[in-house]
Amino acid sequence: MSQPVVQITLPDWVDTAVDWERRYDGDEAKVALAIELARENVRHDTGGPFGSAVFERDSGRLVAVGVNRVLPLNNSVLHGEIVAFMMAQQRVGSYTLGAPNLPRHELATSCDPCAMCLGAALWSGVKRVVCGATREDAMALNFDEGPVFPESFDYMARRGVEVVRGVLREEGAAVLRMYVERSGEIYNG
Amino acid sequence: MSQPVVQITLPDWVDTAVDWERRYDGDEAKVALAIELARENVRHDTGGPFGSAVFERDSGRLVAVGVNRVLPLNNSVLHGEIVAFMMAQQRVGSYTLGAPNLPRHELATSCDPCAMCLGAALWSGVKRVVCGATREDAMALNFDEGPVFPESFDYMARRGVEVVRGVLREEGAAVLRMYVERSGEIYNG
Repeated sequence: MSQPVVQITLPDWVDTAVDWERRYDGDEAKVALAIELARENVRHDTGGPFGSAVFERDSGRLVAVGVNRVLPLNNSVLHGEIVAFMMAQQRVGSYTLGAPNLPRHELATSCDPCAMCLGAALWSGVKRVVCGATREDAMALNFDEGPVFPESFDYMARRGVEVVRGVLREEGAAVLRMYVERSGEIYNG
Repeated sequence: MSQPVVQITLPDWVDTAVDWERRYDGDEAKVALAIELARENVRHDTGGPFGSAVFERDSGRLVAVGVNRVLPLNNSVLHGEIVAFMMAQQRVGSYTLGAPNLPRHELATSCDPCAMCLGAALWSGVKRVVCGATREDAMALNFDEGPVFPESFDYMARRGVEVVRGVLREEGAAVLRMYVERSGEIYNG
């Protein structure tokens, strides 16, 4: 039996909605982009209310973006963070953004990563994750964020991955509410 | 800037190595297939020493397989479990293998899922995960399995996902050791 090929794409609107030349300085600018991606994803009806972006930490250069693609691509793995990691790794040509020949990378995301995405951050090679809305904000809408505990963040810290939470939390949470108001599907397993 | 397209494929040898007509009865037969996939992946040098398969639980029908593709595809997300979930969801045409119109599904995997893959199992819609080698076996080779704790499995159980560990553990662990003996790269972030 011939095997499926899975193809992962970003929505067309990403090309024009993102300023690739800009330098993103500071956590708020980076998370603001992730939240804007989440908002545009809801507005265009191209996936769930989550966006992410991978940056070079020191230069503030944008490397790749991701938005949630679970529903349009029938693929439960395609959270915004996962898509951003895959796109960034393809762009730099390495399975780790922490390769010794690369600048240090960080992820900004519109909402705390779920268990899958926190685990993915560890493998991705980013050394910092900056988050907007909280796990509680997502759980309040019945998104099941999975087995993440306070000691999960301790584990990440011991492995050299800093997680900063609650940056522009209210703006991130507002996009989650917008999705629900538009009757967006809550796509638990 | 035009956006990357990420394409996920299985190695060519999968077509001929897997018996798609067979019915896989019982946990050992299912995990044995996952371990055989892991072993073939090492032998063919097409990725890390991990394999997985998604089955219809009651009929034992094989739905999709996955092998680790991190190194050949430069993509840290592509663990065997993740690839199997994506392929299975594409085959059934749903973002959840737990959709009400589908038979119940389960995952067999050659080694305990890392934090990312355990989280992915929750979103995937499988109701059961059967594992071969243990987290400790993988950690002993310096694969960093991430923030998984005893309460992680309790969380999964409360959400209706049963995780069964240690089925054919020694056979699964032997493939991990074979990978190391062949100087396979340990691809942490």
